Amino acid sequence: MLMEQLLNTPAKWMTTSQDDRDIVLTSRIRLARNIDKTPFPGWATRQERAKIWEQATDAARTLTAMKGAYCFELSNMEQQNKQLLVERHLISRELAARGDSSGVMISKNQQSSIMFNEEDHFRIQAIYPGLQLKRAWTGITKIDSELESKIPYAYNSQLGYLTACPSNLGTGMRASAMLHLPGLIITEQMNKVMQAAHQLNMTIRGLYGEGTEATGNLVQISNQSTLGETEPTIIEQMNRFISDLCHQEWNARKQLLKGAPLTLKDRVGRAFGILTNASILPTKEALGLISFVRLGASLKMLDPGLLKEINSLILELQPAHIQRNQSSQPLTSETRDILRADIVRKYLGRFSLTIND
Amino acid sequence: MLMEQLLNTPAKWMTTSQDDRDIVLTSRIRLARNIDKTPFPGWATRQERAKIWEQATDAARTLTAMKGAYCFELSNMEQQNKQLLVERHLISRELAARGDSSGVMISKNQQSSIMFNEEDHFRIQAIYPGLQLKRAWTGITKIDSELESKIPYAYNSQLGYLTACPSNLGTGMRASAMLHLPGLIITEQMNKVMQAAHQLNMTIRGLYGEGTEATGNLVQISNQSTLGETEPTIIEQMNRFISDLCHQEWNARKQLLKGAPLTLKDRVGRAFGILTNASILPTKEALGLISFVRLGASLKMLDPGLLKEINSLILELQPAHIQRNQSSQPLTSETRDILRADIVRKYLGRFSLTIND
Repeated sequence: MLMEQLLNTPAKWMTTSQDDRDIVLTSRIRLARNIDKTPFPGWATRQERAKIWEQATDAARTLTAMKGAYCFELSNMEQQNKQLLVERHLISRELAARGDSSGVMISKNQQSSIMFNEEDHFRIQAIYPGLQLKRAWTGITKIDSELESKIPYAYNSQLGYLTACPSNLGTGMRASAMLHLPGLIITEQMNKVMQAAHQLNMTIRGLYGEGTEATGNLVQISNQSTLGETEPTIIEQMNRFISDLCHQEWNARKQLLKGAPLTLKDRVGRAFGILTNASILPTKEALGLISFVRLGASLKMLDPGLLKEINSLILELQPAHIQRNQSSQPLTSETRDILRADIVRKYLGRFSLTIND
Repeated sequence: MLMEQLLNTPAKWMTTSQDDRDIVLTSRIRLARNIDKTPFPGWATRQERAKIWEQATDAARTLTAMKGAYCFELSNMEQQNKQLLVERHLISRELAARGDSSGVMISKNQQSSIMFNEEDHFRIQAIYPGLQLKRAWTGITKIDSELESKIPYAYNSQLGYLTACPSNLGTGMRASAMLHLPGLIITEQMNKVMQAAHQLNMTIRGLYGEGTEATGNLVQISNQSTLGETEPTIIEQMNRFISDLCHQEWNARKQLLKGAPLTLKDRVGRAFGILTNASILPTKEALGLISFVRLGASLKMLDPGLLKEINSLILELQPAHIQRNQSSQPLTSETRDILRADIVRKYLGRFSLTIND
């Protein structure tokens, strides 16, 4: 019931419109926190984990941001619903793979969530549309401070917040933004961007985190170091780097439009043509083609109105979302590809290419 | 002037509708003939070739089928016009490469033509829409007999008609048909077909004769032997083989439609989507995609009405036709690709996929 309610409500970050959203889809921050003098989830016994779950959720439930929040324990969740929350970026793949005494609390507007007994006792997350890392930081800090007043955190004055994995030691913070960079990818400038990111202690990865590729020209940028710098400094640096990257992306798009307008129109047109006429559409191919349609819309080759809902469309194309929205029977991957083609055709069929005029 | 008139008139075989045209586009017969006791064009001196041209065209001009015919000597033809006639299958590439005292006479309805001083003194051709080899044979026999009454042919009672190349010795006849075989090609049955053709002394080649590939799933079937069998026997055999092939092609299409209807719809839809939305379209890609649209129309996935004019469209897509119809300035291959995309979009834009309903 609660899960149904959550899934029927689009998250705020999916639909809110932001000026710079054309390039930056979302800004996310997550904090790794642990309860003092308590074994990390990976080392804890089953009973200890149950106790942690009790203590952690009890505290989280009293947070202002979690008023009326959803709370799910993994052992009570259907496989499909876990997958749905992964696709919505509300839980991690790692959490989805866990069982008893692991779970998640999600705020009513789905902007904040807390995972319990993932790699750490708490993984607090805030997700906002567009480039809003600073706002996400303000939001998450409030939750963090409030939680700290109720739970004694594992903290060392030399090392900072103690975490299960040393890579999170210190601030325990991972800030990230999801960007659509077709211009820089097509003009082959990503190596340069990766190098610059590396020098600033940031990493660039694919749509679903580590080890995934930049399907649909979507990449995630996140900070690498959690030691030695304060959170506001890291966020300020990332904010500047991403703003700069948006600028470069726009320049690359303009350069494409100026240098080879027809080649670009051709690619956008072909993508649109396939998406509106295919009968079978695998996720990866769909995302790749939608990237060109999105690029075309941002350059006014297609009705820019389609950008408004395209992030929700991208969610609706994901396997678990198709399973949930389209059928009560278990679907094969082949059937999902057919349903995906229907969804895309219906969505994009309402728009038209303006480049043929 | 005359060339303009010819090019502005579509040939009868391009537009006439035939029931079996869906698979067999055209039936063609050509006869190689030479003047008795006269050196073949390749061995003749310039003066001898001039004399042959005089004698041959004088005789041809009096033929009933050539009343009001067009006659062009190659040395007076622009390069572009030669290419146009090649694309219309009215002259061979070989003739287009020749110069003084070589040329062609084309009947008013463009159904019959005679090339002079190509490899042989005369190459008489008849071209009909659909599977009409027998009718083409009747037509060409009339021209041949009439010409023989005016010109002493090089003929040997043992060997038959003498020709420049031994491969044409005997009947001097090459009968051929152009077929659209997407079903057999997709279901990978062409090897079987090629073997059967080989056993019956027939060869299968691509769209523009020897050494070309089956672009757009279009193939040419022709007889290989010109010795030892009478012309009516050869034509009867070819007619039977091609009728049988049409049957097999229809079975293959039905098999595709039954076995993997969605895969087929998907391919037809994607081809249609690209053709109606691309801005740059090379000839080969266009022909490949049009093949699927044609297949889709024949299976009622697309308005079958588009089949009516699609053969003219295929001609209009050829480089020299685009050059002639679209611009008075010499066009680069890149510009032709852009104009080709426009032509296709305008033509197919009038039709719609019915498979989305």
